[in-house]
Amino acid sequence: MVHELFSPGVQHVLDLVGIFVFAISGALLAVRKNFDVFGIVVLAEVTAIGGGVLRDLVIGAVPPAAFQDLGYFGMPLLASLLVFFLHPHVERINWGIALFDAAGLGLFCATGTIKAYSYGLGYVSSAVLGLATAVGGGLMRDILANDVPSLLRWDRSLYAVPAMAGAAITALCIRFDVLNAVSTAGAILTAFVVRMLALRYDWRAPRAWNRRSAAVEVEE
Amino acid sequence: MVHELFSPGVQHVLDLVGIFVFAISGALLAVRKNFDVFGIVVLAEVTAIGGGVLRDLVIGAVPPAAFQDLGYFGMPLLASLLVFFLHPHVERINWGIALFDAAGLGLFCATGTIKAYSYGLGYVSSAVLGLATAVGGGLMRDILANDVPSLLRWDRSLYAVPAMAGAAITALCIRFDVLNAVSTAGAILTAFVVRMLALRYDWRAPRAWNRRSAAVEVEE
Amino acid sequence: MVHELFSPGVQHVLDLVGIFVFAISGALLAVRKNFDVFGIVVLAEVTAIGGGVLRDLVIGAVPPAAFQDLGYFGMPLLASLLVFFLHPHVERINWGIALFDAAGLGLFCATGTIKAYSYGLGYVSSAVLGLATAVGGGLMRDILANDVPSLLRWDRSLYAVPAMAGAAITALCIRFDVLNAVSTAGAILTAFVVRMLALRYDWRAPRAWNRRSAAVEVEE
Repeated sequence: MVHELFSPGVQHVLDLVGIFVFAISGALLAVRKNFDVFGIVVLAEVTAIGGGVLRDLVIGAVPPAAFQDLGYFGMPLLASLLVFFLHPHVERINWGIALFDAAGLGLFCATGTIKAYSYGLGYVSSAVLGLATAVGGGLMRDILANDVPSLLRWDRSLYAVPAMAGAAITALCIRFDVLNAVSTAGAILTAFVVRMLALRYDWRAPRAWNRRSAAVEVEE
Repeated sequence: MVHELFSPGVQHVLDLVGIFVFAISGALLAVRKNFDVFGIVVLAEVTAIGGGVLRDLVIGAVPPAAFQDLGYFGMPLLASLLVFFLHPHVERINWGIALFDAAGLGLFCATGTIKAYSYGLGYVSSAVLGLATAVGGGLMRDILANDVPSLLRWDRSLYAVPAMAGAAITALCIRFDVLNAVSTAGAILTAFVVRMLALRYDWRAPRAWNRRSAAVEVEE
Repeated sequence: MVHELFSPGVQHVLDLVGIFVFAISGALLAVRKNFDVFGIVVLAEVTAIGGGVLRDLVIGAVPPAAFQDLGYFGMPLLASLLVFFLHPHVERINWGIALFDAAGLGLFCATGTIKAYSYGLGYVSSAVLGLATAVGGGLMRDILANDVPSLLRWDRSLYAVPAMAGAAITALCIRFDVLNAVSTAGAILTAFVVRMLALRYDWRAPRAWNRRSAAVEVEE
């Protein structure tokens, strides 16, 4: 069984931490957008559980995990409460949030891949769903807030690539039958470290070919 | 069986009325956005059945109810036709639309909660899905129209709170085993009345803490 | 069995061609929006497989076909690669893209209708899902790119109507038990030809009634 690499208790705590930090990013965007308290909660919930719900619908795991465990609803509520009262302070600890968000990203790309595989999907599809679990919530957050998804934008540091790396490593570990707590932790850590480096050194993905030439830049 | 509180005929008629008024709001937004007749129909259909389809996908009730009863497709078509030809008159009877919309909101938050519970979800999850049934279509309408969802905006009167109240009352009635036609009608009526009062007196939800201080307003 | 009208091999090739040209349109929009290479791939994938995944979720065909065949992921990758390096040339062959896109539209509205029917849906619901298969990906593409969906806009030539025609003809063929390779090809061809004519002669759907009078235009 690839389901439970860590003890269920540990995995659950990790899940809840990941959900919490994703929820913080949703709630903060809602505050910036001047939404009301309900908008804050909706954006926090969607950001936190959206990716996992999408994955569960695709693999046929209904009702999705988020609807079977009150903690999944509860953490975003807690995050909303925190942001509602303390958002200037929360914004100030941006670095801390980025740290937790990178941890959530790493965690979800690995656990999403494993869950998809355990429902009978192939290696590539599982990795794609791991990626979708990790970045889907943020995508929905930006759509709801009527922003161009930061995931797609050229002027943001790499976000999908670390998650792709983590998901791919996890899928390869499954493929070569070396998935265990250590190798999963390695996949999570890889995604986490790549994300933090991308953020620190502002690594970006290239845009389409001729957009990179100076001539074109001027022309624009 | 919590399924059929009212006679099936009555419930079906109520459902169709709710769908019709939700479709009107979608069609009117499409007209305001200068969409063509097909855009009007799409927005009417999505607004009317989007919330229910989302709920059915989450609880695993596939194909969703809307794909099993032609009335669910037909009512939005009728609403589109009406708006297509008479939209200046329809806009003028805004108060009537608000009335029906509030009725649809109340109805869907209660029936959505009941349907989710009857598919084995917990009390809280059922209430969340009741809420999603009631407000999901409107959310999709605004996303398709490329607007910031009015559900999330601070400068709109309370919309989610009445639906939350209705869904919560319904879930509590199920929990304490007192769900019947009368208590369900009470839940629907509560959501309806709270929504109408919110509209009449322009009740709003608070924004994040310091956004309410005048100092911050100026600073913005 | 309505499943396999053409030999499976032929149908698979047609599917992949349709996916490829839809992916091109997604990738080109991403380039225009200045997204990075990952944004190009995401938009290509969503445009190409979004409609089919939506249909499969609604009819309960999980995991969706796109997650069971690597070709469905692979073609959009290929399209992204092409657009990434050659996009000025690809844009220049707009007419060729429109041709393939119309072919994809025709193909997907027919095969979508047939698949939905084979999962037990009614004639009308099947046709609606055929339409959704054909236009759903483009809708998601525009939502992700934060554009008003071109499907809904008045100032674009007919796109949904050809797909509706193709889906309706397919459903009627099923209804009157005359569905075969020839009649399906007829449905596909009808959608294709109507779309090409709409593009060539800039056919548009009407907007709501009074919006068409000159007086109102001025007033706006």
